[in-house]
Amino acid sequence: MSKPNRAVTVARRPDGVPVPDDFAVSAIDEPQGDGVLCHVCVLSLDPYLRGRLSGRHISGPLNIGDPMTSECVLQVAEDHGPFKAGDLVRGFAPWQERAILPAETLTPLPAEIDPPSLALGVLGMPGLTAYAGVQRLLEPKPGDTLFVSAAAGPVGATVAQLCRAAGARTVGIASSADKCGWMTEQAGFDVAINYRERDLREALDEACPDGIDLYFDNVGGDVLQAAMERLAVGARVALCGLMEQYNTDSPPPGPNPALTIKARATVRGLVVYDHEDLRADMQTTLWQMIQDGTLAYREDATDGLENAPEAFCRLMAGRNFGKTIVRT
Amino acid sequence: MSKPNRAVTVARRPDGVPVPDDFAVSAIDEPQGDGVLCHVCVLSLDPYLRGRLSGRHISGPLNIGDPMTSECVLQVAEDHGPFKAGDLVRGFAPWQERAILPAETLTPLPAEIDPPSLALGVLGMPGLTAYAGVQRLLEPKPGDTLFVSAAAGPVGATVAQLCRAAGARTVGIASSADKCGWMTEQAGFDVAINYRERDLREALDEACPDGIDLYFDNVGGDVLQAAMERLAVGARVALCGLMEQYNTDSPPPGPNPALTIKARATVRGLVVYDHEDLRADMQTTLWQMIQDGTLAYREDATDGLENAPEAFCRLMAGRNFGKTIVRT
Repeated sequence: MSKPNRAVTVARRPDGVPVPDDFAVSAIDEPQGDGVLCHVCVLSLDPYLRGRLSGRHISGPLNIGDPMTSECVLQVAEDHGPFKAGDLVRGFAPWQERAILPAETLTPLPAEIDPPSLALGVLGMPGLTAYAGVQRLLEPKPGDTLFVSAAAGPVGATVAQLCRAAGARTVGIASSADKCGWMTEQAGFDVAINYRERDLREALDEACPDGIDLYFDNVGGDVLQAAMERLAVGARVALCGLMEQYNTDSPPPGPNPALTIKARATVRGLVVYDHEDLRADMQTTLWQMIQDGTLAYREDATDGLENAPEAFCRLMAGRNFGKTIVRT
Repeated sequence: MSKPNRAVTVARRPDGVPVPDDFAVSAIDEPQGDGVLCHVCVLSLDPYLRGRLSGRHISGPLNIGDPMTSECVLQVAEDHGPFKAGDLVRGFAPWQERAILPAETLTPLPAEIDPPSLALGVLGMPGLTAYAGVQRLLEPKPGDTLFVSAAAGPVGATVAQLCRAAGARTVGIASSADKCGWMTEQAGFDVAINYRERDLREALDEACPDGIDLYFDNVGGDVLQAAMERLAVGARVALCGLMEQYNTDSPPPGPNPALTIKARATVRGLVVYDHEDLRADMQTTLWQMIQDGTLAYREDATDGLENAPEAFCRLMAGRNFGKTIVRT
């Protein structure tokens, strides 16, 4: 504990894509009070935090002056009840070097997970989001065509690989040639569309000649519109993320309901917190797939708490590649 | 057959709400050819026909010069195979006095249905739409709050009465005090909202303090938006009709996907043609409810084929009250 304790707080509400000056990094006192003293080791940076910064997310607002908070991998610093110094746990924590957290909000990491940061990515909330979405909302069948947006991210890529394992063709979009190369070469996508280089509608028509049976939406906006225009009869759509509108103050409208009617589609909203009961299954299944080499994932890691604002801004500009984490 | 044969045809594509001059009524020759010669007795006038007139409906376009066509009650005029002169049947037919129709497109009316026009309304396609929507999409549970639009119409009122029979509270909107009075006094609605007199959002907040568990949408547009803003967690939404946009050439956008996500809602498109397998159940169940006095319905009948265009225009302006039919 020789380093001074520091915190990342909200300096002002971002206007559009966040910039580093929307946040402040400052020295703070050592944490006081009851609970488990932890080193905050790895921060999870996720697009939904942008919604919280606008005061519009289901998990509540982040206001000016508040510490930035997200799921983190923590190391227990002092024995406390069942927690022993050195234990690795996950929990929601402020973006600080050290924090005291209520014991009941901390969950031990499964010992086999390596690196521990996977508990924030493909074996954590993004993995659970993908797993629940596929198991409970998409229910892929052999021969289905899946389309997924933000497809090189931990949710999108996991959705596709689970659907592929169930016999579906997989089509995804991402924002760079690097990401698209990884998707087809490592993550087994049948088609990867770089939407910065191709007309999305043209590329989708080519990739999905019989329409889209399954759509997993991480972005909303025009990509959702384009997908809904191409649904096959009986399509299933999981609405999960809203990347295209997190950076705006006035959410745009959505697709006309005629598109849902025409396809007799089933469109469902997915909130990962509802599916905590699947976490153990998810961890077992996805960890096995990682060991078998059938589940590829990427991490986009930044070192230094002081660099968390910049890393978050990069994520929200779509310039990350893989699950975005910060090692303090 | 002493009356001359006449036909209603499409004179031009309507611009906005249709006007009678969008149609032509003219004398035509007696029908010729193979098939069953029928008197066309009762025409069904339905909002989806407006979509066909714009070339935008799932059942295909109606083009300039085409005869207007819809489901009709017909009386067989001459013996033909199993059909005997005088038999009442239903089938898709041109809006004419007499027509020859393929035998395989005609279905005998159940003898007990009285008046026969019910086979076009509450015991016909609108009844099947409501029945399938409730059984397969809404799945009401005791204590659910249902909201339904175009609630005095044959689909809306039947949806509400089926949900009420399943133990749901029922809230509907319609466009006049007369309709609202009928809804609460005859059709058992808990709340009827006259949207021409009340602020819809305020009235919905008052009528659905715990949110909307079930929404059956016959209209789209701003009513759909207002309903989606008020969904309870786990809500089920059946998208069926698009009354607010049938009269427009450029369909408006729909609700933002965040509303579906926030409610973890299941939103499904309903096309009645997919549910033909439920027709016999529907007829038995709804006819029994009519006889028990637990299913109220209204017909809005006009006499004279020549008055069909005006009746259709009234329907599309929302000035009908009940299932709109024309007796030739």
